[in-house]
Amino acid sequence: MDVFEAISGRHSYRGEFIDQPVPRSDLEKIVQAGIQAPSGCNAQTTTFVIVDDPVVLAKMADLVPRPIMRAARAVITCIAEHRPVYKGKSFGIEDCAAATENILLAITALGYATVWIDGVLREGDRARQVAELLGVPADREVRIVLPVGLPKEHCKQREKQQFSERSWFNRYGAGKDREML
Amino acid sequence: MDVFEAISGRHSYRGEFIDQPVPRSDLEKIVQAGIQAPSGCNAQTTTFVIVDDPVVLAKMADLVPRPIMRAARAVITCIAEHRPVYKGKSFGIEDCAAATENILLAITALGYATVWIDGVLREGDRARQVAELLGVPADREVRIVLPVGLPKEHCKQREKQQFSERSWFNRYGAGKDREML
Repeated sequence: MDVFEAISGRHSYRGEFIDQPVPRSDLEKIVQAGIQAPSGCNAQTTTFVIVDDPVVLAKMADLVPRPIMRAARAVITCIAEHRPVYKGKSFGIEDCAAATENILLAITALGYATVWIDGVLREGDRARQVAELLGVPADREVRIVLPVGLPKEHCKQREKQQFSERSWFNRYGAGKDREML
Repeated sequence: MDVFEAISGRHSYRGEFIDQPVPRSDLEKIVQAGIQAPSGCNAQTTTFVIVDDPVVLAKMADLVPRPIMRAARAVITCIAEHRPVYKGKSFGIEDCAAATENILLAITALGYATVWIDGVLREGDRARQVAELLGVPADREVRIVLPVGLPKEHCKQREKQQFSERSWFNRYGAGKDREML
């Protein structure tokens, strides 16, 4: 799939999945896209646990209260490391987000669907509980989970603000004043 | 360009650029890819200033001490907003990183090159100085700058750790113990 087609077709999917497993060869191709994402100082801080064991999937769905977690035949867990890599600064969150975006595009290109689940993991002790389930070391943070499957419904990307509302040449908000005159 | 080709071809470029302007139509297509990135609660917190005015470019290069900033014929400035959007949580950094990754892939697909410049902006007062130059409001953070141009040299993506070193099925580090036996 063309990269611009993948970027404009990518969307958050919260619907039902077709009851069909996701082959490991596809899951590996998807996560490989995440591995190839940039990272601060090329420190490659993001790691991944791909869950496709039904027993572990059921436990994940117990811990992360989103209906789509129950329907997913696979869940990609994106794990951040907050180790400082440049003058005391960590880029663990950026690294993890960039890797996740590559993964979303790969999921789109292969005809699967997913949704970026993030904030709910940071409520209470959820991220730690998922980490314990998956054996993630204490110095790593389960930051994002991506339930993956073949979508039953066709969905589109949610509407975005226009280019002119979010981007300007040479000066923030350029042209806005003129429009207001 | 195929999305997997863009993902594996994307790389950080710090070399020289061909002395040729980057057409605004390409810059708009590139930034549009960033606009289409996901954001927490679809809050679309990331905004962009695209610098292609030589006077502003020279001032940017004074503020951000990286040789490639001096060579670039355009700089895309990615601006984060840290407004909480979900139960007091902000996803401004993730939003900005995901948008930047889309932009990097678009740059790759159109034959340009760039490098994600980030940490240096957070040294001293640099991000604020760039913000002032571009008229960015005080509640927004200049988070990432991307100098863009046509590369003089052909470069490849830096080597990444193998799939088996960064990803596992169902359990973190699965298979590692067996290898050590």
